[in-house]
Amino acid sequence: MAKQVPYKIYLSESELPKRWYNLRADMKEKRDPILNPGTGKPVTADELSQILVTELANQEMDVTNRYIDIPEEIQSFYRMYRPSPLVRAYCLEKALDTPAHIFYKFEGGNTSGSHKLNSAAAQVYYAKHQGLTHLTTETGAGQWGTALSMACGFFDIDLKVYMVKASANQKPYRKAVMETFGAHVTPSPSNTTRVGRQILSKDPTTGGSLGCAISEAIETATLTDNCRYVLGSVLDHVALHQSVIGLEAKAAFEQYDLYPDIIIGCAGGGSNLAGLIAPFMGDKLAGKRNPYFIAAEPASCPSMSRGRYAYDFGDIGRTTPLMKMYTLGSGFIPSPNHAGGLRYHGMSPIVSKLYHDGHLDEARAVEQTRVFEAACTFAKHEGTLVAPESAHAIRVAMDEAIKCRETGQAKTILFGLSGTGYFDLAAYMEYQNGQMTDFIPTDEDLERGLASLPILPK
Amino acid sequence: MAKQVPYKIYLSESELPKRWYNLRADMKEKRDPILNPGTGKPVTADELSQILVTELANQEMDVTNRYIDIPEEIQSFYRMYRPSPLVRAYCLEKALDTPAHIFYKFEGGNTSGSHKLNSAAAQVYYAKHQGLTHLTTETGAGQWGTALSMACGFFDIDLKVYMVKASANQKPYRKAVMETFGAHVTPSPSNTTRVGRQILSKDPTTGGSLGCAISEAIETATLTDNCRYVLGSVLDHVALHQSVIGLEAKAAFEQYDLYPDIIIGCAGGGSNLAGLIAPFMGDKLAGKRNPYFIAAEPASCPSMSRGRYAYDFGDIGRTTPLMKMYTLGSGFIPSPNHAGGLRYHGMSPIVSKLYHDGHLDEARAVEQTRVFEAACTFAKHEGTLVAPESAHAIRVAMDEAIKCRETGQAKTILFGLSGTGYFDLAAYMEYQNGQMTDFIPTDEDLERGLASLPILPK
Repeated sequence: MAKQVPYKIYLSESELPKRWYNLRADMKEKRDPILNPGTGKPVTADELSQILVTELANQEMDVTNRYIDIPEEIQSFYRMYRPSPLVRAYCLEKALDTPAHIFYKFEGGNTSGSHKLNSAAAQVYYAKHQGLTHLTTETGAGQWGTALSMACGFFDIDLKVYMVKASANQKPYRKAVMETFGAHVTPSPSNTTRVGRQILSKDPTTGGSLGCAISEAIETATLTDNCRYVLGSVLDHVALHQSVIGLEAKAAFEQYDLYPDIIIGCAGGGSNLAGLIAPFMGDKLAGKRNPYFIAAEPASCPSMSRGRYAYDFGDIGRTTPLMKMYTLGSGFIPSPNHAGGLRYHGMSPIVSKLYHDGHLDEARAVEQTRVFEAACTFAKHEGTLVAPESAHAIRVAMDEAIKCRETGQAKTILFGLSGTGYFDLAAYMEYQNGQMTDFIPTDEDLERGLASLPILPK
Repeated sequence: MAKQVPYKIYLSESELPKRWYNLRADMKEKRDPILNPGTGKPVTADELSQILVTELANQEMDVTNRYIDIPEEIQSFYRMYRPSPLVRAYCLEKALDTPAHIFYKFEGGNTSGSHKLNSAAAQVYYAKHQGLTHLTTETGAGQWGTALSMACGFFDIDLKVYMVKASANQKPYRKAVMETFGAHVTPSPSNTTRVGRQILSKDPTTGGSLGCAISEAIETATLTDNCRYVLGSVLDHVALHQSVIGLEAKAAFEQYDLYPDIIIGCAGGGSNLAGLIAPFMGDKLAGKRNPYFIAAEPASCPSMSRGRYAYDFGDIGRTTPLMKMYTLGSGFIPSPNHAGGLRYHGMSPIVSKLYHDGHLDEARAVEQTRVFEAACTFAKHEGTLVAPESAHAIRVAMDEAIKCRETGQAKTILFGLSGTGYFDLAAYMEYQNGQMTDFIPTDEDLERGLASLPILPK
């Protein structure tokens, strides 16, 4: 008989991952190279190191080493808040009256409130190791900014955060948390950068966007001594660090001889999804297992389900190298949508490649009123108030569990619960008051965004 | 050689307490009886049941049964968020350069953000079991109200929360969380009750107090069908439920052959402290061990260190039965102080008795600027943003650890980290901006409060 599965499975400290898993090593078809937008030629690690921390630039280019050792100082930081539990959602299963077994990997149990801390700790450690004294970054909903502030506070690095203005206004306390950890927070667009001033001169009342905040952070990094730009999603090295999520989840399942049939993650820039699925996708690519992978994305910003697989800039200011990814075009301005972290025009190149090649089975766009309905159901029965981003994955997981009720199948469903929603209560209030609406871009909206795609130099 | 202590010790699900520990059974000198203010005679469980849930009234009177079984439904609720980890504060030790071994029991890892959920789950279960459909309560900082809202959401009970107006204004999102779980929140004093209207007529701009909110909640409970009043601290049955904190902590220590030399808890109404110390105090009363117990309280509301051990009402409206406790007088109006949950004139009768008899060694009043300084140090090194209440315990623990640095003693220090501070950021901002001040009541302030103590009927 199978072992009784507890509500929460915790690995012991000695079972924590000591190496990150580099999924790219097991992808037979590698993602397309990152290109220099001026020359159209692949960028080198040296070029990337002008903007990024050197070791992170190296990791960005490393598509061959299957495992990368986690330095002891980072492992030590991880031990402050990891392992995160793999939770069996017994109460939700009962409420849904489903034969499905629903599990979630809960990454919200740290003060930053999300999985972002996994990469923040790594990035700041490498910056410190390189002798850097300053970092810049952008943040949307604030989770990445908070995580990076915590890591910078711990490792004693000066941090400047450009926070999407709409979020900064909606979430003054997010800003306060970052400042408590010692970070300097500037609402974006700001008049502290050339790109910010340009955008403000066109539209002084804009609420900003992630793409714009990225441009400001990069500009500031390049103009500041001993400083680099770091970011919390999209890039391959971030996905690499996030592989601890999937590695822990897989190890926890193995303790009970279990393996998920369906794996669901919300996808904004893709780091949470990429980290969660990494080792399971490795099994699939090796032909060992065949779980069904679903990326949950907002209907208002459907990069994968309605975007184009093309080379694009990572930012609205068109200052980053070009990446091949699913994108709505860097000129696509997502409608105001409370799931701030998912308002990004592009998608992780790894995730994009896996989707394009059919290994990631499905990208499913969900409307935010249905997302918040799922979040409230989850809160009531599982007792956790989740971030709107994560609620996208909950919505899809609940829909799959309801299908199981109809078919009678006892599938094992895993979703990533990437973060908590303590700073998203304005959105919850809006939902409770019946004031929340859905926004689905028209084909014309999408065409306008895609018109901003760059033309590659010959 | 002793086993290497991990950063976090988690009990397995099968090791979770199945019984609460009733410390009163091991107190040779029992606490003084609860009195009917009209007759001066001890109240009976039947009388208490007019206001309280019957089973809770029974538990309130039970000073003889050492263990009380935790019903399976409550154990099941606990498994959603327990065990809480016993954390070794390695990074804080290093930052303080102390030979002390600092441990904390972290109760903030659930959406309510505090230990309060331990008693909320129990109370709502018993209410449901009794066939009640409505509950009322008060909340100060909002932790109790949130916890009770979660439990009422889960067990499907209608809840009305009177929230201290100053807190409701300071923390609109606390209110939103409670409403997300389905509770009705009324800022107190309100014009929905007789006692509220009386207080408002005297001072229309008052920010309210816990004592006043209690009066309103009791009045409403007595005038509503199928309704009882529940509260989150002070009373013995609450301390009983909170014993899970200490039981888990003790079991976790035992796995590493450890025992704390110093045990520190913050004390507002006393439930967190009582729960944390319960089994350790049992050892002390039995002559098996002799840890040093410290209650950390705010200098602005020093119930134990500067109050009187006397019979007093639990509320400002003088509607509760009389309890023998350390009190500043129900007429003592604490100054505005961000550690909202510690702004209470009285103290748990059990805790009071233990302190009066010298078993609880020390009550130490700490000023809030030093408390926030400790909270910021803790955040930077341990990565958790704590509630101001909990930061009182951190301040004392840090002071004790610094003493160890001076004496070279490697003491084992345990403190209770009762909750997180995500809803206390206004206070953190005030501290960061240098606008926070300390308030220490004068002897005259205290005399005025004590003048409100009731005269017992002969």
